[in-house]
Formats: sequence, C-alpha cells, structure tokens
Amino acid sequence: MSLYGPMKLFSGTTYPDLGQEIADYLGVRLGGVNISRFANGEIHVRFSESIRGSDVFIVQSFSNNINDSIMELLIMIDALKRASAGRITAVIPYYCYARQEKKTVPREPITARMIADVLTTVGADRVITMDLHAPAIQGFFNIPVDHMTALPMLAQYIKQKNITDGVVIAPDAGSVKKAEKLATRLDMPLGVMYKRRPAPNVAEMTFFIGDVKDKTPIIIDDMVDTAGSIMQVVETLLNRGAKPEIHLLTTHAIFSPPAIERLSHPAIKEIVICNTIPLTPEKQLSKITTLSVAPLLGDAIRRIHQDISVSVLFD
Amino acid sequence: MSLYGPMKLFSGTTYPDLGQEIADYLGVRLGGVNISRFANGEIHVRFSESIRGSDVFIVQSFSNNINDSIMELLIMIDALKRASAGRITAVIPYYCYARQEKKTVPREPITARMIADVLTTVGADRVITMDLHAPAIQGFFNIPVDHMTALPMLAQYIKQKNITDGVVIAPDAGSVKKAEKLATRLDMPLGVMYKRRPAPNVAEMTFFIGDVKDKTPIIIDDMVDTAGSIMQVVETLLNRGAKPEIHLLTTHAIFSPPAIERLSHPAIKEIVICNTIPLTPEKQLSKITTLSVAPLLGDAIRRIHQDISVSVLFD
Amino acid sequence: MSLYGPMKLFSGTTYPDLGQEIADYLGVRLGGVNISRFANGEIHVRFSESIRGSDVFIVQSFSNNINDSIMELLIMIDALKRASAGRITAVIPYYCYARQEKKTVPREPITARMIADVLTTVGADRVITMDLHAPAIQGFFNIPVDHMTALPMLAQYIKQKNITDGVVIAPDAGSVKKAEKLATRLDMPLGVMYKRRPAPNVAEMTFFIGDVKDKTPIIIDDMVDTAGSIMQVVETLLNRGAKPEIHLLTTHAIFSPPAIERLSHPAIKEIVICNTIPLTPEKQLSKITTLSVAPLLGDAIRRIHQDISVSVLFD
Amino acid sequence: MSLYGPMKLFSGTTYPDLGQEIADYLGVRLGGVNISRFANGEIHVRFSESIRGSDVFIVQSFSNNINDSIMELLIMIDALKRASAGRITAVIPYYCYARQEKKTVPREPITARMIADVLTTVGADRVITMDLHAPAIQGFFNIPVDHMTALPMLAQYIKQKNITDGVVIAPDAGSVKKAEKLATRLDMPLGVMYKRRPAPNVAEMTFFIGDVKDKTPIIIDDMVDTAGSIMQVVETLLNRGAKPEIHLLTTHAIFSPPAIERLSHPAIKEIVICNTIPLTPEKQLSKITTLSVAPLLGDAIRRIHQDISVSVLFD
Amino acid sequence: MSLYGPMKLFSGTTYPDLGQEIADYLGVRLGGVNISRFANGEIHVRFSESIRGSDVFIVQSFSNNINDSIMELLIMIDALKRASAGRITAVIPYYCYARQEKKTVPREPITARMIADVLTTVGADRVITMDLHAPAIQGFFNIPVDHMTALPMLAQYIKQKNITDGVVIAPDAGSVKKAEKLATRLDMPLGVMYKRRPAPNVAEMTFFIGDVKDKTPIIIDDMVDTAGSIMQVVETLLNRGAKPEIHLLTTHAIFSPPAIERLSHPAIKEIVICNTIPLTPEKQLSKITTLSVAPLLGDAIRRIHQDISVSVLFD
Amino acid sequence: MSLYGPMKLFSGTTYPDLGQEIADYLGVRLGGVNISRFANGEIHVRFSESIRGSDVFIVQSFSNNINDSIMELLIMIDALKRASAGRITAVIPYYCYARQEKKTVPREPITARMIADVLTTVGADRVITMDLHAPAIQGFFNIPVDHMTALPMLAQYIKQKNITDGVVIAPDAGSVKKAEKLATRLDMPLGVMYKRRPAPNVAEMTFFIGDVKDKTPIIIDDMVDTAGSIMQVVETLLNRGAKPEIHLLTTHAIFSPPAIERLSHPAIKEIVICNTIPLTPEKQLSKITTLSVAPLLGDAIRRIHQDISVSVLFD
Repeated sequence: MSLYGPMKLFSGTTYPDLGQEIADYLGVRLGGVNISRFANGEIHVRFSESIRGSDVFIVQSFSNNINDSIMELLIMIDALKRASAGRITAVIPYYCYARQEKKTVPREPITARMIADVLTTVGADRVITMDLHAPAIQGFFNIPVDHMTALPMLAQYIKQKNITDGVVIAPDAGSVKKAEKLATRLDMPLGVMYKRRPAPNVAEMTFFIGDVKDKTPIIIDDMVDTAGSIMQVVETLLNRGAKPEIHLLTTHAIFSPPAIERLSHPAIKEIVICNTIPLTPEKQLSKITTLSVAPLLGDAIRRIHQDISVSVLFD
Repeated sequence: MSLYGPMKLFSGTTYPDLGQEIADYLGVRLGGVNISRFANGEIHVRFSESIRGSDVFIVQSFSNNINDSIMELLIMIDALKRASAGRITAVIPYYCYARQEKKTVPREPITARMIADVLTTVGADRVITMDLHAPAIQGFFNIPVDHMTALPMLAQYIKQKNITDGVVIAPDAGSVKKAEKLATRLDMPLGVMYKRRPAPNVAEMTFFIGDVKDKTPIIIDDMVDTAGSIMQVVETLLNRGAKPEIHLLTTHAIFSPPAIERLSHPAIKEIVICNTIPLTPEKQLSKITTLSVAPLLGDAIRRIHQDISVSVLFD
Repeated sequence: MSLYGPMKLFSGTTYPDLGQEIADYLGVRLGGVNISRFANGEIHVRFSESIRGSDVFIVQSFSNNINDSIMELLIMIDALKRASAGRITAVIPYYCYARQEKKTVPREPITARMIADVLTTVGADRVITMDLHAPAIQGFFNIPVDHMTALPMLAQYIKQKNITDGVVIAPDAGSVKKAEKLATRLDMPLGVMYKRRPAPNVAEMTFFIGDVKDKTPIIIDDMVDTAGSIMQVVETLLNRGAKPEIHLLTTHAIFSPPAIERLSHPAIKEIVICNTIPLTPEKQLSKITTLSVAPLLGDAIRRIHQDISVSVLFD
Repeated sequence: MSLYGPMKLFSGTTYPDLGQEIADYLGVRLGGVNISRFANGEIHVRFSESIRGSDVFIVQSFSNNINDSIMELLIMIDALKRASAGRITAVIPYYCYARQEKKTVPREPITARMIADVLTTVGADRVITMDLHAPAIQGFFNIPVDHMTALPMLAQYIKQKNITDGVVIAPDAGSVKKAEKLATRLDMPLGVMYKRRPAPNVAEMTFFIGDVKDKTPIIIDDMVDTAGSIMQVVETLLNRGAKPEIHLLTTHAIFSPPAIERLSHPAIKEIVICNTIPLTPEKQLSKITTLSVAPLLGDAIRRIHQDISVSVLFD
Repeated sequence: MSLYGPMKLFSGTTYPDLGQEIADYLGVRLGGVNISRFANGEIHVRFSESIRGSDVFIVQSFSNNINDSIMELLIMIDALKRASAGRITAVIPYYCYARQEKKTVPREPITARMIADVLTTVGADRVITMDLHAPAIQGFFNIPVDHMTALPMLAQYIKQKNITDGVVIAPDAGSVKKAEKLATRLDMPLGVMYKRRPAPNVAEMTFFIGDVKDKTPIIIDDMVDTAGSIMQVVETLLNRGAKPEIHLLTTHAIFSPPAIERLSHPAIKEIVICNTIPLTPEKQLSKITTLSVAPLLGDAIRRIHQDISVSVLFD
Repeated sequence: MSLYGPMKLFSGTTYPDLGQEIADYLGVRLGGVNISRFANGEIHVRFSESIRGSDVFIVQSFSNNINDSIMELLIMIDALKRASAGRITAVIPYYCYARQEKKTVPREPITARMIADVLTTVGADRVITMDLHAPAIQGFFNIPVDHMTALPMLAQYIKQKNITDGVVIAPDAGSVKKAEKLATRLDMPLGVMYKRRPAPNVAEMTFFIGDVKDKTPIIIDDMVDTAGSIMQVVETLLNRGAKPEIHLLTTHAIFSPPAIERLSHPAIKEIVICNTIPLTPEKQLSKITTLSVAPLLGDAIRRIHQDISVSVLFD
C-alpha cells in the first residue's frame, strides 16, 4: 500500500472506454461513482464507495462538450476532497484550452493557466497529462505534473515502416521544436511551413522551406482540430513534388468537422493518432491507426502510486 | 467617477437581452467583447476596448448550458484581471448549483461552494446575485455579495390583485421560511407540504397541513425546474377544496421539460416569474407574467459603483 | 497505526468530562496538555508529551465563555502545528455562532464562516461536529467535515416510548426540515409554528398549522437557548387541545437563564438532550434525559483514524 | 477625500472612552454600530450606517476579557468586509498575547503570530498598534503595521521633573534594549536585573548590576501585569541604597490583582502610564499619572487616511 | 493623480543609468532610496522619502549578479509594501531564468515560475517586462503583466537600411516563431537552423533549411549569451554562400565571455541590441548599435499610471 | 521508513563539507544533485536520482554570496516539489538577514520575514535552523521550525576549563537575554555594554555596568561579523581591569574583514565557534576552537525523520 492509501481509479463520463482500458491494464476495478444530470443541466456526482484515505486517480479527458468535462472533473474533485481522499490525481489525457497559454493580442485571457488554478483550488494534488501544446504549461501548475509524451510511441511506429526517403514536416512555426525532436529520433531532414506578409497591407501568405521533392513527408502536430492548416501543408507538399504518401502523426485527434472530409484526401496515406480523445463513429477513417495511451498512463499511475520514478517512461 | 474607475458593463452570451436591458436602464452602452468558439468547443474571449482601471460589471446568468455559462464567466474574468480592470463584479442573476449547498448523503460535493471558490480564485472582486436557494450560500464567498431578492416585487404584484381569501403555500419543508416571509408581506395564512414515511420500509408520501378550502392558493418557490413537485402541490390543493385559481410565484423560471406542459394545467391561473433566465420561445405561456429584474440589478450596480448603500433596495 | 501516525486525543477545558468519556469509550488515555491563564486572562497552552507525527484529535465544545473556548482551540491548534502534528482534527460537539450563517439585515457578519476560516488558517486539517444549525455551514469549510447527527439516537429513544398519538412539532419555519426528518422516522404527522403580520404596521404574531388536539406533541429543535420560543409553542399547543405531555428533543442544550425556569412547566413531560455542552448543576431538572454522544463521536474518531467509512454512523 | 473613501471611526466595546477621545481629537463622530450579546454569550454586531467604500478605523484594545475583545474585533472586521468597506484598519492600542511571540519550551504556540494571521484572514488591511512587547511582532504581519511608541511621551514627561540623579532600570534581561533607549533620551546610566543559578540544581536567583546608591530609579517596562517582578526590583533597589523615590513608567497598565496593592508601596513615588487599556475604578491610585495616547493615535489615523508620512510621529 | 496615488519611480542598483533615462523621459525625479551592503553581503534597503499611498514603479533588470538583483528587488518590494505603497509595479527589462520555463529532463525546477511566485508573494502588484524567452511565462503570473516587445523597434531600424536581399534567420527551432514575426514585418524569407541525430548513438548535428545564397542574413534572437550557437549559424550561413554582411538583432545582450570575441567576427556587419542590460565597457564593439527601451518603458509606465491603454505601444 | 518516505539528504553548494559531515554522522550517502551555473550566472539544478515520495533534507547555510545561497535553496526546493518529494526540510545552519527582523526606522523591509515567506511559497515543509538572532523569527514561519541552539555545547566546553573567576559579558543591550542564559548555566555574574547619549545633540557613547576587575570575561554573541563592537568590549574590559584572558563564544562566525585582524588581539585568549558557516583559510587563527554542529543537526534530522521528539536535544 502506498503512503497515500490504497489505489482507487475512477473515470469521468467523457471517455469511459479509456478509463476501463487503463483499469484493465492495471488489473484493477474502476471505482463506483454516479454521475447524473439534473433537468437544468447541473451535474450531480456521488461516489458509491468509501474513498477515505485512498490514493485516487480520476481519468477525465477534456473533450466532447469540453466545458462540461472540465466542470465535471472539478465537481468530482470537490466531492473527493470532502470525502477525505488521501491524494487526488487528475489524469487528463487531453488538456484543452492549451492554445490559450499566452496573450497574443491585448485583453485576452490565459485560460490554460486559469484552469490550472481552479484545479488546484478545488483540491487536485497532482496531474498527469500528455503532450501539452506548449511545454511551459507545466509551469502553470504548482502541484507536480507528470507530463507524458506519445512521441517515442509515434516515432517507433513510423520507424517500423522503414521509410528511407522521409522528411519531417512542421506545419507551422510553432511546431518546429516538436518536429525537430521527431527528426532526431528518425534521422530525417526537416521542412517548415511559415507565414509572412509579402507587402505592406497585404494579407499574410504561407511559405515553405526545405526540400521535399520525391520524398515521403511525415507531418507531426500535437493536435489536429479542423485540419485546415494540415491541408495547406498537403497542397504545398504536393506542389513541391513530395510523394503523395503523406503520413500524419498527432497525439490529440480532435477532428472537428470538416476534418474527416479533409483528411480523406488520397495523398494522405496514413494517419497515426492516440486515443486521448474518444473517436466517435463519424470520425472513423480506414487509414487511421490508433495507438493506445492506456499502457503509458497506466504505468505512470502505477509508478506514482508506488512512489517510483516515472522518468523511465519518457524514453 | 468611482474610486475603481469609470463604470463598464459587459454581458456574457447566455442572456444578452437582460444585459442590454440593464444597460438601457442605466443609460450606458454595453461594452465591446468578442466571445467566440473554436471548432472543438473552446470559448475564446477578447475585450475590444480598454478596461484598464475600470469598474467592470459582467452580467452572466448561469443558464442554457450552465457549465458553458460558468466557464465563459471565469474566462472573461481572467481576461479582465490580466487587462488591469480596477474592480470586477460578477452579476449573476441566477446562481445555479445552489441546491448542491450541503451534503445530504456521504461523498457528495458542495458544488455551490466550489463555484464560489473558483470565481474568487480567478479574480472576481464582488458578486451581485438574486434569491439564492439557501441564504447561507452568501457565506460561501469571502468577497462581498449583494444578495438581491425579488420577493418585495412579487409580493407587490400580488397585492394589487386584492385577493382577500389567499393562502400562501410552501411546496416543501425547505421553502417554509420563504413562504413565511411572503405571508408576512401579504398577511395571509400558510399551508405546508411535507413528506413522511407511513410505515417502516414504505416509501415516503406527501402530506399537507393548513386550511385551503375555498381559498386562493399563492405558491411561492425560489425556482421552478420541471414543475413536478409543483403539480403534486396543485393536486393536493384541489383535493382539499382550494379554488382552482392558483397563483405560482417564482424568481428563477428554469422550466425544463415537461414544465410547460405541466404548468398549462387550468387550475393554475397565473404564473409570475422574473427574467433572471432567458425564457426561450418554447417556454412561453400566455398566463405567464414576467417582472423585470433589470431596474433592481441596475440600481444595485449604480449604487455599488457610486459607493452608496444598496440596502434601501431590499424594502 | 494510521497513515497520519498514532492517535492522540486531547481535551480543551470547556468540557473535560466529555473528552474523558470519549477516551474511555475508545480505550485510550487523554493526552497531557497544560492549559493555564496568565493574570491578564491570556490563555497559555503547553503540550506535555511529544505529538510529532501523531494523528491528533482535540475535543472542544464551544460553550461556557464561548469566545474563550474558541480562542483556546485556536491556540491549541497553533501549538500542535508548530510541534509537527501529523494531522489535526478539531472535534467540536457544539459549533456556536451557527445562527450567524447568513446576513439577515445589511452590515452583519457571517460569523459561522469566519470561524471556519480561522480554524483552517490556524492549521486544522479536519473537523467533526454535530447537528449544525444550518447544514450549509459544512460548505463554509474547505477541509473535510464529518457532520454527525443525533437525530437517529433521539428518534430511537422516543420510539421506545410507543407513543401512538404523537405529532412532531416544528417550533418555527426554519426547523420544518428537521421536523420532517423526525416525522419520517417516527411516522407521525407534523405541526408548524410560524409568524406573520396581521395588518400593515402591526407587529408579527405567531400562528400555527396542523392538528394537535388530544395528541402528544414531540417538539424538535437543534438547540434550545433561553427556551422563550419553546414556551410560545407549548402555550399554543395547549390552547389547541394537545395533551399536556409534551416531549422536547434537542441536541444542544444551551439552557441560558431563564431556560430552566421555563422548562419546569408541568405540561413538558420529558426533555431529551445530548451532552454536547456541559450541563452545569444549576441547569439540572429531573425530567431531563441526557443521551451521550461519546459513542457516536468516539466511533467517528476511530473510523477517521483508521481511514474507514464514517457514513455507516448516520443510520 | 482619501483614495479609500471617507474616514469612518468605530469603537469596539472594550474601551469606548478611548474611541471617543480619539474621535474628539479628530473632530469626527464615532460611527454607529450595535454590539450585543446573545444569551449564550455570542457576540452580535451590526453596523447601523453605510460603510460602503469608506476608510474604516476600528479602535479595539485587547483587554478586559481579552478573548472576547479579540473575537469582537474579528467579527466587526468580517461584517465590514462583507459590507464593502474600502479599507479596514484595526487600531489596537494594546496587543495582548505579545509575550507569546516565541517558543521558550517545546510544544508551545506562538499566539502573537496566530492572532496576526487571523486578523489578516478575516480582512484587516492594516494595523496601528503601540509598544509591542517584542518589535519583531511587526514581522508577524504581512499587512502594513504602524507601530507607535509612547517612549518619547514618557521620556518627555520625566524630563520635566529635572531629576539629576536618575538611573534607568531594566527590570529584566529582556527589557534592557528599551531601557537603553530611555537612557539615551534622558542621558542617565543604566541598571539591570537578571537571573542566574548560583549552583547546579539550585533555583535561579535574581541579581543586579549597576550603581543605584543615592540615586532616583526610573523603572521602564512595556507592560505591568501583576507587578510581581517590579516589586523584586523595588526591594533590590532599596537594598542597594537607592532613594525611595522610584518612578515607574509603562505603556500598558494591565494591573491585574494584586498589582495595585503592590504598587501602593511608599517607595514608589510616581507611576506614569498610558491609557491603552481602561483603568477601572479599583485600579486607581493617586500617584498614577495617565498620559493620553489619543493625540498620537489620532494623528496616526489622520495621516494614514491622508496618505502622508506617519514617521514624523516617532520623534 | 492616479487612483493609486502620485507616481514614484525608483531604480535598483543593477542598472541605474536606465532608471535615470526613464525618469528623464518621463520628466520625473528618481525617488530616493539607500541600498547598501552589510559586511557579510546582506543587502540593506531604506527608502528616504514617504511612499505612503504612492503608485510606485521600481526599475530593476535581472543582470550583473542576477541573484543579487532578484533579492534586491524582493527586499525593495517588501519595504514598499510595509511602508504602505498604494501600488507596486516591478519594471524588469530583462527577466532572467526565462530559459528555465519548462522541465526538459526530470527533476528540474521551473525557475521562471518560481520567481513569478515569489515576486507576487512579496507584494508586487504588477509587472512590466520585455521579450520574455517564452510568451507563456506571462501565464506564470496571476498579477497583470505588460509584456513589451522590442521587435517593432528592431524591425523599423533594419527597414531603414533598405536591404533588398535579406533573409531572416532563426538560429534554432525554438526561435522560428519570433523569426516568422520579423519576416512578416520585413517581408523577407526565412531560414532555420535545427539539430538532428544522423544515426543511432551518434551525437546530434546542426542542419539548415532555407536559401541564403548571395543574401544578407538577419539573425534574430531574444537574447545572446555566450554567442556560441550564433557562431555556428554564422559559419553555416557563410558555407552556404550568404553575403558576409550578417546583421544580428537581439533584445537582451547578455554577452557573457567569450561573446565579444566571437561577435568580432568580420562577417557580422552590425549588431543591434537594446539597453535592457547594462553593457559594461569590456563588452563594447564599434559595430554595436544600441536602441534605447527607455521611451517604450517610459510610455508604458505613464499609461499604466494614467490607466489608459498600453496596447497601442505594441505596433 | 518514515511516513514521508525514505530519508534523502542533499547539500547545496555553500558548505558541502558540513553536508558530508552530517551524512557521515547519520551513516547515509549524500544524494546526487548537479548544481551548475549558466554563463550569465543563472543557477541550474538537476537532481540525479529519484526523490519521488522521499523525506528530503537539504543542508544549505546562507553564507558566501548569501543571495546566491538563498536563491540556490529556493530553486532546489522548486525542483524537489515538482519531482514529487514526500516532504522537504530546509536545514539552514545559519539564517542570514536575521538582524533585519524588525523596522528600526521607517520604510525598511523585514527581510527575515520575507525569506520565511518565499521559502514557504516555494514549497519548504519545515525548517531546521540554529541560534536565530531573535527568537521571534521562529514566528515568521507557519511551517514547523526546529530551532536548535549551540548554547549547551558552548557552555559545556567552557565549563571544562574550570574558570572560577569568570564573568559573562553581553556585548550590547540586545544580547543580555542570551548572556543571562549562559550565566545561568555557568553560575557566573553578568556584565553589560550599552549605549547612551551623554548630552543633547551629542553622539551616543558606550557604557558598561558590572564588575570585571581581575575576572576572566566570557563574551557571548550569536554571530560575529566584522568584530568591531567586540573590540569595543575588549577595550572596555581591559580598561576596567579584567584579566587579559578573554574568551569569545559565538555560534555564527561570519568573520568579514577585518574581523580576523581584530580578533588577533592578544587579550583574546580563545575563540570558540561552531561550523555553521564555512571558515575559509584566510579566516583561520590558531586560537579558534571549532565545535561541530553536525551531531546536533544530524540528530535533529534523524529524529524528525523518525517522528520522535527533538526537544531532548535542547538540554
């Protein structure tokens, strides 16, 4: 038994399948909790088993109606705190609002920080999350954050394809750092999309640097939402003579419409995603390969519970 | 000008008409703010005018998708704080989750407190709200709360009807206190619904005390959601010989389905509500009378801004 | 041994007999602490045994000079915190200032919240208390509160009397909810006292609804202070033909003068109280039956220490 | 008008005369507040005039029943905060528990810090106090403290006596620093009382260093409680040939019994005190001279309200 | 006068010339403060003029011995808070430790967040800073941050050179975003340096994408420390045929040895820096052009003091 | 194993020898941590072994460049907190800035409090320190402080000398309390240095009370910095006929120049210090005797880790 009591694993309602998969991986039972809605939309939570002095992990991805999923997690944590949980770890496979981690124009919020604060205020003792849009978001928390990454898993998957003419593509200036990491693991060159304004008072246009001719592009992005910018990349790559065998790797497959329509483009050969967000039936494509994060998150949970190092999971 | 800078009034998206009505009452312009949604449902807020050093009031009722409305308010406050607002007052005509203000069974949250905490954490300096389900919710805040009540307005409206055979009805044990206050203003007797278990291991049943025969019942409740318990009251009243001219008074007309169907009952003569929540078209009934809270909230805002007493508005 | 170290039980000076009774029930020794007064009235506390890494419970009811009893508890907690207690639980059988849990007129404090805050600031990790005047006071804390109730014990005691013509009496509008709970356990009907104003500019008068003729009234109130309003109830009940065999049930027997004089009224047959407050010799009456809360609080302490569910104690 | 709104001055119940004297000095009216007691001893506070947006000063010395006086101040501050005071300054002429500012043996509290914390938690924005027992207590606060001293006033008074053979006496090792300051102002030599153990396992005894023969001793102490140690000093001084014309100076005249009896000793010629604590009738002696702190505190209040330097008052 | 009192401007000891320059720009006098060292290295601060109720700005860059400069700022803020400053704004032209804004390997600190926390704990009300290494660092604060940028100033300076064959160079993957912004302002193409591992178990090597042949490179970086990586860029650019007329733009010229030696390289034609850090005599080079941030910071201070929008300064 | 996990002991860079000595005393290995400097002076910390769930003690004296040593400790604690340490105890043999524990003139900081706050903010759970300049500094913390003292060790050492004509000397008014404690342990009389102003507008002069003729003076001070005031004491003692065999006892031997030159004075026979601060080679004198605090601190660490009483170490 851990210093924080016996382990209890609960799942919120946004992605119960992932919760169950992690439970199966760990060989534990998902804890009992009733989450219902009042007629006016209020979430009501009641845990149906004692969690007094337990080391509680709640799996809740911020997806579907993301605000509901955040509020549900906050409410669950409040109930756990008042019911004397020994330690409360929020397991958030996809941490939304992560693109709002800075002010780009005046009078904007920094919502990613705000959510970190309310999680802490309400009573979370620690957080496990994955592939944050900006790594500095870790610093938005003062509670320990175990920041897992799917990059090794994604890289390993691509490596098995034995692509010898690959080029890693950063779809925008902000993702060059992540693309560089993938390029290092695959020993492939890099290509970068960026924007600039060709003349004063003219709209910004998209430009590209790097050589893709007759190469197989591996696009990497932490999340894909509507896939609009991905399609700009695809077009540019094709125009510049890349092979129409593009691979797209992403951890968080949000796939808001019309993402699926766009991603059906025949030049995209394979889409490799992780199951941090539920992929609803209308978001399925035969060329999508889903890698499960359940073993990664399960190992992190187990190691945190046993107070042994999590860092070995980063390689 | 106030000590906290010039007044600025903004409205969230849940009930812009009420925000506008308050602005009109105060003779001010609603401040500019862009509130949009990313494809994945994330709320994005940007204030389009300087609010540096201003005395800001945001009108946001917790309704429609209530979790969205709460998150939107939190995000707006975060943006205001970072943009150096002088003082931030959250004007919340209907404060939801107010029925979750205590633990009735073990391992429940106290969500009404949790929301008070996150509002404060995020940066609200004060709150204006109305007819909280339990008055102790005021004590969930450590920032000043101006807790307005529609009771005088509702009582005044009924008084003009000159009902001489009225009886104030508390629809459950928890609303006797509020019914008592109305009875005091109207000098009418009281009737009370309550529940008890007629034998061990038998379900609770509804009972009634008080004399309603040939009288005109005035039911008072702080909020009406699906109107299920109201209909139990109506039946009981009719069974006990009350006149089929029932008046129903409530501040917060949530009216979740099938409330409207139920409230169409011919024995309910008039329904008097306040506009703390938007009454969408499908919730309209000709016998509904809506009293506007805009003057009350507007006066409170003006007085708070001018640092003069708000208490005169309670009579 | 618990995760928080070995259990240590201490008692403040307001009700050492209760502390001892709980210790006896648990089969432990009361821990050593010297609590003295300087000549100017300052309380001085020194624990005479190591409490480093212990799971400390302090029993302190807020009674006698209640402000002294609050300050004494705060000072004890400060000393425990600085002496490295593993966990500090304040056991407060009677939480005073509980009637000041909301603002009823402008510019009042919410003292019940203020005390919750200072307890937390000073270092209390959790609280055990009983029959709070308003259940929302639980929400005034952000540390776990185990809110025990004497209602089952009181109901059980009355049940053994086999009163077949009983009627549960709520002495004012605010206690109908509690009376309803008792009625449910006893399957008895309800009677309610309330106030209203018979004409404009006329003082409020007391009214009653419910049938008590030839019945045995069971009055229930969470606390009885001077018993003034209880006597109004007694008179009303007698006027309406109730049997002069009234039972009065209350958890917190404050009995400030002239309570004892009033409660001597012959129509009050029995007074059932709990020992949450010391009943000094001048407050004794032969018809008072005292039920001990020591087993209930002792069980709660033991279960909290062992990290097992407390909720079974609520039935 | 100040940035914090118009000035309002209130007095708690421990020393209303001092509050009134300060009000008179400032030429303002004492604000209206009802402070009463419930039968069980609970303090109830209600401010009877709007304090919204005001710069509020509350005068409350910690004396009489000191715990009542502390709680009363906390409750007043809570009410002011919730009533939207612009700024709240606690004026505490005598800050009790100041001798409990460190741990001298294990498992003691540091009550002086604890009180600083609860004042801040409850909502005090700043503090004015006088002659703290240890100057480091200022550092127990993170809100601004204006720490006034009566030393110049006391020194000035003695100077007018033209005592040419004076010697300043520190009654114990802890007050040498303060005695040194007085000696500097009066240019008199110093005498010091201290304790030591003359042999192992023998009780500590009192010793003295310095020359007092045929001199006029001026004993200085920040507070005098039972005057026990003062009498040891008096005896020692007389034994060593000091003139039986001892002057005793102190800011805080607690004078718990049997102080008055002791201080009647004929060798004590004059006792000079300040009115930081009410000197009840039974504590009067004809040889007591009381210097009023009302001008000093009044000036501090006025300067704080006007945001001008307070430091000129220290000379 | 501002709501926060009259403006007072102070300078710490790290860069008094910049403080003076800002004061001159604003037409105000630098406030009086004595900052000295005890023999053991302790910093001692004393403000020599009243700052009660003032709107205080302290200019302190984190440079020279950066830990001394941080501690000095913390100590100054503590003194200001206790001396009742109305509002305290820390003006930090160069915010060091900004590269430690995330964990790149396990068991590292996030020092940039830690410093934000201690500034807030100590009493800073707001911060003005420039060109943070990562924009998310803004989110490390919950107090308002005015994040100024020298980019428009640097871009404007280069524009006047009328370089028609320019190419903006990002010296590493992490600075592509910033390079993109400059490219947009100058309408120049982009070149990017990055690293990857050419084979398993082989060290990472530097690669380059983009076309620089016969072009004039404009390298942009937020800070230049030892200039090691800049020299790698210079070599790569020359190898790829760039004109030996390289321009280097940077906001924060740390220039730790052997930066100056390296930057003397003849292919670097001009180095444009800002005066956020004192450029000591041994760091001077004739080809260095220093743009002053005093007008930018001065305008920000003035606008914050007057509560008018700062955002106009971002264009 | 403790409730807080296995013990881990780390040392900062200011005094690694002391860290090692404590580790040796405890029979444990010093934990692995890399502490380096970036070129610009930024401290970089990385722990090289897992500290998840460990009971961590960091030994860091505030000396050498004291601000560097404070910042280094803060950064280490931040890293430990984010790496999920079970409990973090800062072992600070010499707590600098302790003379800045009060405001002696207006507009000074209280730096000793400020450092207590930032240590707590950053994540320290408890502190072990020694011979604080003022004992009230303990109250600057709200986390437990184990305040060790070298006095018994120093007294024991002197006792073995069998000095029969000794007199304990307090070098200024502020150290009389500590001198009194030593006198009690040694049963020696006291002598006190103090200052006063002999006439208006004349500088303060040093005076002495007590009899030292033909006696052996034992000067005690908590810290010796430049030894300036010590030399005034030495001269005074010699002038008054004391034996030229002065002993100087101090816990914290800061010995800033020209301390060593001064302390070479032949009338000082022996200097007894503790190793709370590294005594660099240029500070060595043959008459210096160093008593090691490693056993005392080691015992404290072991007892804290095992949750057994530390107070036995005070005798």
